[in-house]
Amino acid sequence: MYAITIPEPGGPEALVWAEVPDPVPGEGEVLIEVAASAVNRADLLQRQGLYNPPPGASPYPGLECSGRIAALGPGVSGWAVGDEVCALLAGGGYAEKVAVPAGQLLPVPEGIDLRQAAALPEVTCTVWSNVFMVAHLRPGETLLAHGGSSGIGTMAIQLAKAVGAKVAVTAGTKEKLDYCAGLGADVLINYREQDFVEEIRQATAGSGADVILDNMGAKYLDRNVQALAVNGRLAIIGMQGGVQGELNISTLLRRQAAITATSLRARPLGEKAAIVAAVREHVWPLISSGHVRPVIDRELPMSEAAEAHRVLDESGHIGKVLLVAS
Amino acid sequence: MYAITIPEPGGPEALVWAEVPDPVPGEGEVLIEVAASAVNRADLLQRQGLYNPPPGASPYPGLECSGRIAALGPGVSGWAVGDEVCALLAGGGYAEKVAVPAGQLLPVPEGIDLRQAAALPEVTCTVWSNVFMVAHLRPGETLLAHGGSSGIGTMAIQLAKAVGAKVAVTAGTKEKLDYCAGLGADVLINYREQDFVEEIRQATAGSGADVILDNMGAKYLDRNVQALAVNGRLAIIGMQGGVQGELNISTLLRRQAAITATSLRARPLGEKAAIVAAVREHVWPLISSGHVRPVIDRELPMSEAAEAHRVLDESGHIGKVLLVAS
Repeated sequence: MYAITIPEPGGPEALVWAEVPDPVPGEGEVLIEVAASAVNRADLLQRQGLYNPPPGASPYPGLECSGRIAALGPGVSGWAVGDEVCALLAGGGYAEKVAVPAGQLLPVPEGIDLRQAAALPEVTCTVWSNVFMVAHLRPGETLLAHGGSSGIGTMAIQLAKAVGAKVAVTAGTKEKLDYCAGLGADVLINYREQDFVEEIRQATAGSGADVILDNMGAKYLDRNVQALAVNGRLAIIGMQGGVQGELNISTLLRRQAAITATSLRARPLGEKAAIVAAVREHVWPLISSGHVRPVIDRELPMSEAAEAHRVLDESGHIGKVLLVAS
Repeated sequence: MYAITIPEPGGPEALVWAEVPDPVPGEGEVLIEVAASAVNRADLLQRQGLYNPPPGASPYPGLECSGRIAALGPGVSGWAVGDEVCALLAGGGYAEKVAVPAGQLLPVPEGIDLRQAAALPEVTCTVWSNVFMVAHLRPGETLLAHGGSSGIGTMAIQLAKAVGAKVAVTAGTKEKLDYCAGLGADVLINYREQDFVEEIRQATAGSGADVILDNMGAKYLDRNVQALAVNGRLAIIGMQGGVQGELNISTLLRRQAAITATSLRARPLGEKAAIVAAVREHVWPLISSGHVRPVIDRELPMSEAAEAHRVLDESGHIGKVLLVAS
């Protein structure tokens, strides 16, 4: 088969479409013939040599895909060859075929095109596991989602609104904020022009955000804690603003607050399967009913992954960038 | 009545035993005739003017007491004048009488002397709420408790052992560590001579502590996160090592870890009552059965609170320092 390989880490041009051996599904795994994959920030780090795949994972990038089951490994039940699925991957989505543990499979939701379904696994699993399973966002509470127009952000807005929460977002342009408003965001904060701590306080009568979903890490740490309400929960899922942050423990203590940092990729199979099962139970019905939808910026041929990475590097996109099989 | 007052913040001599008006129990409160109170680190900060009582609280120090109910305010049921109790207070324990919401009362456990019971409310509520209700320490997991010979530490060791966890402690002298061993601590770390990150790794076959109970704040933040296991939880309850810490978010993320910071004093009444109820359900039977006991360094007359504060300032004590009514 062909896959996107990374012979030498570097810029987008480091991604090379090359012939490689077919993966073989192991015990409890299925082989997927990939219809589409999608680009995640972590792929850009992997391309630069800054984020190695966990032990045992495919060396090729790609943390999610959609496609058809081409073969079942030993010990798999509940799925059949030909099933249309999408999947959370530890790697290897930028390829014609990928092997994945059956616990990370999801059916393609009703009303969703097979290729579009590749936009769903990472954002639904990341948002559900962090905002709901870890931070327990409740109806009537306020979620602040940084990067509101990203794939994660657009899903966070929709899921938080679906459970009856109030949603504030940050983004860097009016166009992006307008898009967030269209998805239901209640409070729109342009981080280039406004102080999100001040804006979230004003929008919550001084109390702050109950949950913050953060992709910035160090750069926002201190201000995120300031922006939390009493009993607030800061869920960090990215470090686009650096690694080494300052934390005022007195501020955290006065808010009786919690900070968590998680990633999906490195988790043990059992935890991933539990998240996927929760997403299938709680999120899939909202997608099938049309209340929540994948937000897709554009589709590019998988062999042009370099161009897709340039799109994310420039941050002009809204939602997910798909890589489709030819 | 008489109470310890703080006419001007300062050293231990700032504590003045003086005649003050009697407190009057409000709606839902009881009046306790105090048998004993106990000294907490927060009292030392309050004495220095660094930790003001929350709105509505007594201006006198003292976050816990034992004694007899002297009067019931309106709307109190389930308690009677003459009942022997101990109580979690928002302040005012260093006094002959104190008014307290009925939700913060606990009966004196079987087998415990009325005065000794003053050593229980803060340590049991702090340890139970943080280590079990927030951090969910489970049987077989490892707890690292800093300040193992403190009132909090000695209770944390006993409760964690009672639920089947492994316990590591830090302390600054061999005498203190020996005492911790006698309470059941499995791993003894002299923080003056050993690196607790290295020691906890060795003691856990490299995996780290599942839960850390921390009273140091900024000074230990970075190393505490390093010492956590995957899915570890750092519960910060004090800032003896300062307020402004450094946090490496990448380290936190690789551990899929959580940091919480809480205090009891500023919480709303409903949360305090829920913690007190959980302590009565889960901890009181362990005390009544003799599996867990209050650790008391010494008793001093309440009018000599200044001397008691000097004992804590010098940190030579093990367990709680009681202030007993004359």
